Amino acid sequence: MDSERAERLLFEELRIPSVSALPEHAADIRRNAEWLGELLAGGGFRVELVSNAGGPHPVVLAERLDAGPGRPTLTVYGHYDVQPADPLEKWESPPFEPTVREGVVYARGAADSKGQHMAWIAAALAEPRPPLNLRFLIEGEEESGGRSLPTLLRERAAGLRSDYVVIADAVFSPNGLPTLVTGLRGLLYVEIEASGPAVDLHSGLFGGVAPNPFHGLVHLLASMRDREGRITIAGFFDDVEPPSAEELASWERLGDSDREVERVQGAPLVGDPDQPPLHRRWARPTLDIHGLPGGFIGAGPKTVIPARASAKLSFRLVPNQTPDRVEALLREHIRTHGVPGVRFELPLIGGGAPVRIGTDHPGVAAMSRAFVEGFGKEPVLAREGFTVPVTLDFMNTLGAPMLVTGFVPWDAAPHSPNERLPLDFYRRGIATAAAFMRNLAG
Amino acid sequence: MDSERAERLLFEELRIPSVSALPEHAADIRRNAEWLGELLAGGGFRVELVSNAGGPHPVVLAERLDAGPGRPTLTVYGHYDVQPADPLEKWESPPFEPTVREGVVYARGAADSKGQHMAWIAAALAEPRPPLNLRFLIEGEEESGGRSLPTLLRERAAGLRSDYVVIADAVFSPNGLPTLVTGLRGLLYVEIEASGPAVDLHSGLFGGVAPNPFHGLVHLLASMRDREGRITIAGFFDDVEPPSAEELASWERLGDSDREVERVQGAPLVGDPDQPPLHRRWARPTLDIHGLPGGFIGAGPKTVIPARASAKLSFRLVPNQTPDRVEALLREHIRTHGVPGVRFELPLIGGGAPVRIGTDHPGVAAMSRAFVEGFGKEPVLAREGFTVPVTLDFMNTLGAPMLVTGFVPWDAAPHSPNERLPLDFYRRGIATAAAFMRNLAG
Repeated sequence: MDSERAERLLFEELRIPSVSALPEHAADIRRNAEWLGELLAGGGFRVELVSNAGGPHPVVLAERLDAGPGRPTLTVYGHYDVQPADPLEKWESPPFEPTVREGVVYARGAADSKGQHMAWIAAALAEPRPPLNLRFLIEGEEESGGRSLPTLLRERAAGLRSDYVVIADAVFSPNGLPTLVTGLRGLLYVEIEASGPAVDLHSGLFGGVAPNPFHGLVHLLASMRDREGRITIAGFFDDVEPPSAEELASWERLGDSDREVERVQGAPLVGDPDQPPLHRRWARPTLDIHGLPGGFIGAGPKTVIPARASAKLSFRLVPNQTPDRVEALLREHIRTHGVPGVRFELPLIGGGAPVRIGTDHPGVAAMSRAFVEGFGKEPVLAREGFTVPVTLDFMNTLGAPMLVTGFVPWDAAPHSPNERLPLDFYRRGIATAAAFMRNLAG
Repeated sequence: MDSERAERLLFEELRIPSVSALPEHAADIRRNAEWLGELLAGGGFRVELVSNAGGPHPVVLAERLDAGPGRPTLTVYGHYDVQPADPLEKWESPPFEPTVREGVVYARGAADSKGQHMAWIAAALAEPRPPLNLRFLIEGEEESGGRSLPTLLRERAAGLRSDYVVIADAVFSPNGLPTLVTGLRGLLYVEIEASGPAVDLHSGLFGGVAPNPFHGLVHLLASMRDREGRITIAGFFDDVEPPSAEELASWERLGDSDREVERVQGAPLVGDPDQPPLHRRWARPTLDIHGLPGGFIGAGPKTVIPARASAKLSFRLVPNQTPDRVEALLREHIRTHGVPGVRFELPLIGGGAPVRIGTDHPGVAAMSRAFVEGFGKEPVLAREGFTVPVTLDFMNTLGAPMLVTGFVPWDAAPHSPNERLPLDFYRRGIATAAAFMRNLAG
């Protein structure tokens, strides 16, 4: 496939607003799955859209297992769903109209992760065909915590036997090196709902005697993470395992990335002063508040004491923490940090465990040589601070050696306005994917 | 005017969604002003809609000063603007379609305060005409802090000379007695804007090093009011003056209103345990958070660290506090309670001073007898926990004896869903207003 067609195909997929967290985009999600299915079927793949396997959105399962005897089988994972695009007003071009400025394409999903699986698909659709058996598993629920792909992996593990699994959802290091990921943080996402009065009240009439659920929430939340950023939930760090000696040695190659991280976030690095910033991003658990719905958030003054308010927040978890154990600690913390008159509930709970990924298999050398061919650089062992929940499901069901890697620069603004992907990374990613498949086949 | 016409007129005004805090209702505001102007002009009033006097919405100024020599002049204040109606889903009938259930009309503004000024207007439009000079000043910016009416009062004070001013915006006591108000709490409304990173960030990539503005806000807000509800800003209580002996004696007539307050708010009474609940509602200052805009508040999970977040909050103030002094204390508190990496600003500041109202004038006896005639009950000296900002402007410009009173039960849900007014209160209010005007004229 020439690079012009590869770009055209990427832009086509980027135009589909496949936001899995918002029910109004359900039809777009299905359209994206069908679009991928037709594309892969056109390249000789047997395609199945696996629906209703535990979540609302179909998994695109595409296989081309005709490479002949003795050839390895590679499974590539990606996700075609994307994060919501808001705040819309912060985008310099429409999030679902891919726009190229100075060789960079801007669109929701360009980096996370349509640009990733499309590089692998472009390499797979090239002629002559790569000399190995290929399978794509591209899900539509990565950003919304659905269970379709995990269910599919568990129920059909035998039929999905693989020699290697590539999770195409990681990024380069801040100093510009490709990465092979040895650990992913897990996630526990919760919504804490606080109830005060039975109805919304006028603060002039009831101010001074009514329990205000926002005051309950600010005290509860302040008690969970201190001013400097240390998490203060009892027992929270008990299970945290420090990075290995091999990881620490590889991290030396990264140099000082702190200034680069500071530049991208546009604010000083803050957080637990007892841990280096790189450890805080990769190897330490976090707590972040994402939103506090409730009350009056329009323009101008309104003096309401709301009946209810909530906090949306998440914990990033590291080996050997588990979402279940952290949820139990959180419930105990809430129980012991009550605020008079305010009741707390947890209506939303979801998440995935953190993951450690081994590097003692031949796929590592094949991928290293591929990166040298595609990008001219050896990859570094790294961790990622984010979560690819299905990684653990792949490990537990297929048991194949895993490669978690990606063709996206570190500052590509996933989950943010103006998400982007340099087209040079996309082209080099296609070359790297092709080289890896050749290397793997020997 | 018969009571059927009086009700029809009230319902007509309630159908106009005159929400002054929301710019999209500007045309409704104007329509409401014109509707009032036409109604009063039809009753022989000289009407002027005074616009651009310091705020966006016109003041309805209506005078009928033809009662003859020796007759007193009464000015009645009201406001035709209303609070926003959200949360809409909590209303049992549409907020701007007045609906009568069991003798009670439900609509935004029924109690606060269209039902109040319409009772006075219905009494004024009755035949024979009340034997005194009458003036209405009905503004459209009470719920949004505009300056049109204060500017008008200051610029035209000489032409607005009055013997008495009635502020028709108070409520009955929880045990069902009419009230003559001796003090109103003031208000300081602020929005605290917190800034962290330059753009919204992915919490997986930046969690652990990015300053999260929500964490800044929860620490700042928790430092301002403790778990029990005591305000902890240094110097905040320095200027608070306790209630007078006369007030404390009158409050004895109210009995124990705590259970009734608890019933209406549907939650236990909370707050500073060192002060009785009645004092906390009337004579003590408060702090309430009304909303925390920013981040992601949709359904489902989204793991954003937002660039900005805000807190909308207000202080209720009591004599002798001033908004300026409390704003200065707040700024000092914010300055000394920083959170690393988070910048705080105050983009919105507004408010009004608390008020003490004297009772040493003949209008008090005239109103007491009117309440006995209209409602069969003597009024009690009371305070109100809320704010009628223009009261102070009337005192400072016209210097006339003031009567702050109203025809609305205590649990009428102003500022809340299902705001309401029993039609019996409306009818008795019209009779009370008529009796007061006769009593005043001697």
